[in-house]
Amino acid sequence: MGKIRVGILGATGTVGQRFLQLLEHHPQFTVTALAASDRSQGKPYAAACVWRLPGAVPDAVRGLVVQAPEPPLDCDIVFSSLPSDIAGSVETRFARAGYRVVTNSSPHRMDDAVPLLIPEVNPGHLALLDACKGTGGGFIVANPNCSTVMIALALAPLAARFGVAAVAATTLQAISGAGYPGVASLDITDNVVPFIAEEEEKIERETRKILGFLDASRVTPATFAVSAQCHRVNVVDGHLAAVRVKLARAADPAELREAFAAFTGLPQELRLPSAPERPILVRDEPDRPQPRLDRDAGGGMSISVGRIARDGVLGHRFVALSHNTIRGAAGAAILNAELLLAKGYLEGP
Amino acid sequence: MGKIRVGILGATGTVGQRFLQLLEHHPQFTVTALAASDRSQGKPYAAACVWRLPGAVPDAVRGLVVQAPEPPLDCDIVFSSLPSDIAGSVETRFARAGYRVVTNSSPHRMDDAVPLLIPEVNPGHLALLDACKGTGGGFIVANPNCSTVMIALALAPLAARFGVAAVAATTLQAISGAGYPGVASLDITDNVVPFIAEEEEKIERETRKILGFLDASRVTPATFAVSAQCHRVNVVDGHLAAVRVKLARAADPAELREAFAAFTGLPQELRLPSAPERPILVRDEPDRPQPRLDRDAGGGMSISVGRIARDGVLGHRFVALSHNTIRGAAGAAILNAELLLAKGYLEGP
Amino acid sequence: MGKIRVGILGATGTVGQRFLQLLEHHPQFTVTALAASDRSQGKPYAAACVWRLPGAVPDAVRGLVVQAPEPPLDCDIVFSSLPSDIAGSVETRFARAGYRVVTNSSPHRMDDAVPLLIPEVNPGHLALLDACKGTGGGFIVANPNCSTVMIALALAPLAARFGVAAVAATTLQAISGAGYPGVASLDITDNVVPFIAEEEEKIERETRKILGFLDASRVTPATFAVSAQCHRVNVVDGHLAAVRVKLARAADPAELREAFAAFTGLPQELRLPSAPERPILVRDEPDRPQPRLDRDAGGGMSISVGRIARDGVLGHRFVALSHNTIRGAAGAAILNAELLLAKGYLEGP
Amino acid sequence: MGKIRVGILGATGTVGQRFLQLLEHHPQFTVTALAASDRSQGKPYAAACVWRLPGAVPDAVRGLVVQAPEPPLDCDIVFSSLPSDIAGSVETRFARAGYRVVTNSSPHRMDDAVPLLIPEVNPGHLALLDACKGTGGGFIVANPNCSTVMIALALAPLAARFGVAAVAATTLQAISGAGYPGVASLDITDNVVPFIAEEEEKIERETRKILGFLDASRVTPATFAVSAQCHRVNVVDGHLAAVRVKLARAADPAELREAFAAFTGLPQELRLPSAPERPILVRDEPDRPQPRLDRDAGGGMSISVGRIARDGVLGHRFVALSHNTIRGAAGAAILNAELLLAKGYLEGP
Repeated sequence: MGKIRVGILGATGTVGQRFLQLLEHHPQFTVTALAASDRSQGKPYAAACVWRLPGAVPDAVRGLVVQAPEPPLDCDIVFSSLPSDIAGSVETRFARAGYRVVTNSSPHRMDDAVPLLIPEVNPGHLALLDACKGTGGGFIVANPNCSTVMIALALAPLAARFGVAAVAATTLQAISGAGYPGVASLDITDNVVPFIAEEEEKIERETRKILGFLDASRVTPATFAVSAQCHRVNVVDGHLAAVRVKLARAADPAELREAFAAFTGLPQELRLPSAPERPILVRDEPDRPQPRLDRDAGGGMSISVGRIARDGVLGHRFVALSHNTIRGAAGAAILNAELLLAKGYLEGP
Repeated sequence: MGKIRVGILGATGTVGQRFLQLLEHHPQFTVTALAASDRSQGKPYAAACVWRLPGAVPDAVRGLVVQAPEPPLDCDIVFSSLPSDIAGSVETRFARAGYRVVTNSSPHRMDDAVPLLIPEVNPGHLALLDACKGTGGGFIVANPNCSTVMIALALAPLAARFGVAAVAATTLQAISGAGYPGVASLDITDNVVPFIAEEEEKIERETRKILGFLDASRVTPATFAVSAQCHRVNVVDGHLAAVRVKLARAADPAELREAFAAFTGLPQELRLPSAPERPILVRDEPDRPQPRLDRDAGGGMSISVGRIARDGVLGHRFVALSHNTIRGAAGAAILNAELLLAKGYLEGP
Repeated sequence: MGKIRVGILGATGTVGQRFLQLLEHHPQFTVTALAASDRSQGKPYAAACVWRLPGAVPDAVRGLVVQAPEPPLDCDIVFSSLPSDIAGSVETRFARAGYRVVTNSSPHRMDDAVPLLIPEVNPGHLALLDACKGTGGGFIVANPNCSTVMIALALAPLAARFGVAAVAATTLQAISGAGYPGVASLDITDNVVPFIAEEEEKIERETRKILGFLDASRVTPATFAVSAQCHRVNVVDGHLAAVRVKLARAADPAELREAFAAFTGLPQELRLPSAPERPILVRDEPDRPQPRLDRDAGGGMSISVGRIARDGVLGHRFVALSHNTIRGAAGAAILNAELLLAKGYLEGP
Repeated sequence: MGKIRVGILGATGTVGQRFLQLLEHHPQFTVTALAASDRSQGKPYAAACVWRLPGAVPDAVRGLVVQAPEPPLDCDIVFSSLPSDIAGSVETRFARAGYRVVTNSSPHRMDDAVPLLIPEVNPGHLALLDACKGTGGGFIVANPNCSTVMIALALAPLAARFGVAAVAATTLQAISGAGYPGVASLDITDNVVPFIAEEEEKIERETRKILGFLDASRVTPATFAVSAQCHRVNVVDGHLAAVRVKLARAADPAELREAFAAFTGLPQELRLPSAPERPILVRDEPDRPQPRLDRDAGGGMSISVGRIARDGVLGHRFVALSHNTIRGAAGAAILNAELLLAKGYLEGP
């Protein structure tokens, strides 16, 4: 009973490095292939990659030679964090070649056939893949944008208990979300940039798909309005969102607190290896959550919520925080893969 | 025809230092007295103060001895930036002793008898002082909270042209707003703090007073809802606000842009010395305004507005930016004093 | 065979918090008493302390009531990170009352009777305590200043192999070294402060004591000149030192590299729980070590050395980096206590 | 008597932008041509350039079309801040075509025929150009590396009064020194990078040339040893250097202070427009100079020196600070051009 063999597309990037870090001791997956679209092809990973995380390149992948991101690769499934300008067509080719593609990239997220998955929130959307199940055929499963994961996770218990009528989220996002070299230091030192390309649009549309309803063969997006205003701030890791929400029924802030704190999902029930004990941690201090103090909660897989209060315009408000390259990217994809495995979607024909 | 002699209460603090910097070459005011509530009393200012602005203590005040903040002081009017725990009673004593008090501190802002003044926005509120006019009696005029100035300035042209039905502002505020030593570096390096004591409440109530209506002897606050969520970010100077606004009538974003760009007020008409040529600068680049690049626009007295767009939840949105210790504090108070002077409120009996 | 019961003096400070974090799962020590000199006395630790490290207060100490830092305390030994203005007399009282005091504070470091200990460098200096051994009497053992630990560790293999004739170290020190609230954010954002009170003097004198020679009952300092220039930079954790060294004999940079890489000591031989596998890690990349990437090496107990090269003025140069609150403070004291335990200095009469 | 017409090579870069900012109201020079090596050629400057300085593109150059950096250009002299990989050959072609080239780029700095000029330090080195004088022929004059300017300026009065026997400088350099995009924010947030490519070598060799002696047709470098260790720190503008110096004769720190404070040069005597009143400002506070507070001294053209003290290894030490893109780059070149003009080197045949 060996581990499932995993290929990483975009292995040299910041999310690719997180994949390798998080998979180093994973009980179910082992990395057997690395690919990247850049000049690193043909070199051993340790030479190809400028490792930007604390610590060193995991020993098991130091010598793996970086390949072009094209099938075939010596692996059973692929994790993708390719740049969005090439991810779409590459991932399609892998899926057509029979690979199961678990992607953090954006191009396929809104495809009708692709579940946009947060295992605690919409595991039922995996039914989109049921036609492929057991055929050995390839497919694509996507996790949301790094800010959307957190916003949708926080909304899930509110939608379930109270109904959501409208959401306005203002984000303060970390520099690691832009990759490497990413944000120039001259742009962000002693500064804020009130713009992240396409980010507001992604949050607005992805949130509705995740919280939408599965009909036969596609997901009908939720109908509530979503507004996002996005900012880059001088933080290494950890996206924060100031959220205002209009609920479908009256509720006391204490009820929202209870809904957040009690929230749990299928990953917790199935004890998936990357599932945090609690998906949402509630902080009651007046000045939390904070990126530096709370981003690593639950190994980076728990989001933290605080400052739950009434709001004069939309009814309620709170602040959410998540580790953008773990729960918001590599960890999200790995948890998706763990759910796929647990539910039998990774089995052969 | 000498200059008006000014005393500074709270002269050693960060706003006090800005007062001295901005008044160094002022054509109408000259600093003749300095007072502070701390251990600096009795020392020459240059020895009493740890100067935290670029450059050096203005020569004219280096030798002024710091006094206790109690009347009498050798001056005609006082500017106050005392800490809020003592400002209220001290300012009252100065007003009762016949001084005109132009304050940046918060305790009296909501008093019925105190105009909460932004000269471009609500100069008519000065009528609250008409009973004192010409009597030689003292009074208090306040400028708003550092974030409120910018939000109210941005709303003013919208309120005038379209009517405002609701406002939700999310702020990213600079560390200089907390004074010195203020925010601990361990709290803000690689971090965001989603809390500033009483800031959300101040923005919510002050905005309504400024945009309210004068009836006989008091101001009736505007009736629209205001929601504020406030964050401290790692920026030296320059508060940014992501604003969503519900207007009373339909409008195209281009109309909002035009309303912002065309906005002008009494300080511009009167050519007050500290009035910027344009109170609101519109930036059309997708990634502006930014604190480091735009805070000094108009000598720190212009606010900058950008990213004007439709919003799925409240109808419209934009981003505003202002220098928090100039237009948001010392410069605001000085502009208030200039208007008082121009309108005859500083004349003797 | 229970664990040794430990009291923490200065438990609410930044180093005190590190003590608790590092001792949470320690195999030999268990925290049974907490004391602090501030207003936190009398409160349960979780209420008394504003926890500034990622994660939460360890469960085992949440309910411990913070006491005054005076004997008696319910413990066998005390770790001290008291402020330097009170540490001296308090530690003396604990030692006289029979406690073994393992201190990170500075007042006693230069005392003749106090070993200034780095277990890999000068374990022989423990002989200063031999008169107390087995008597059950109290004593004080100190670890050096946070920058000195790293400089002395890096010099140790050079002194042993080549002899050291002079050292000039220029430090770039992290903000956590100043405690909390410590450095004001206005002082360090977009800035460097070329001054840390008494730091240069501490490095200059402590380095010579650590690398000095034990004669009978005291340590004769090493005779080489030490020069330190110290700067505070905008880094959360991790002190960096640019070191130039004049050796007593000619050496090739490759020989220095070999001396660093091969260095090991008694803690490694004894497999002390907090001893890193290698005290000094050599980084060969041209741009390492870096605080954010290398401070956590060896659990924060390894220092990293890089950029080893010839120097036109003093002969050789290199850059060293260490985690200032782990190897430079709390971890240093714990390693000292582990060595004391292993060598029988914590046994009763 | 019109102004001298200036072309800027590398006009879109960070130093190019500083040239335009500093020349906007210059009494002697007017910008008539812009050139850059990048994709901006053929566009009006306002469209070609992402302006990264506070404020806006100077009106006079908004419409100038960016050209290729090749002669002919419509101007009398050129300022160059081209990237070092192309500056060498381009500048040679301009000089051969008869242009006077005033360059901030590095390739020609060590050429025998090129004065490496700091007008206060070595104006006599201009004699290298005497053969060209009055011929209308082209030549190249270079200013030093951004850190070298400050180090050589600080050493000049010491060399004159006491003689210099050795210098060891450790720099903490601002991110603007690397241009735009330059340093990635992930590399410098909560971090220090102990490496700047070729910087240490430049400081070591350029300092000796500047302080060298002119013989007939070339400069013989000074013979004292120079050692540099360079670091990038998280500061926008302002390079700081911790300097240790061995003087040729005994001196009291107070004598060094006096030498710094009294230092003045030809630019001050000639009242050149960009010359600061005092080239070196002495700060006596224990914690100055600091980049954010002192970089703009003298309009960015004064360096600041503080912490003058004895040093146990080399005899004396101090800290120097300079604005790296003004005195360290664009301002240095402009001052060089002003001296050339004053001494008749810009006259035609």
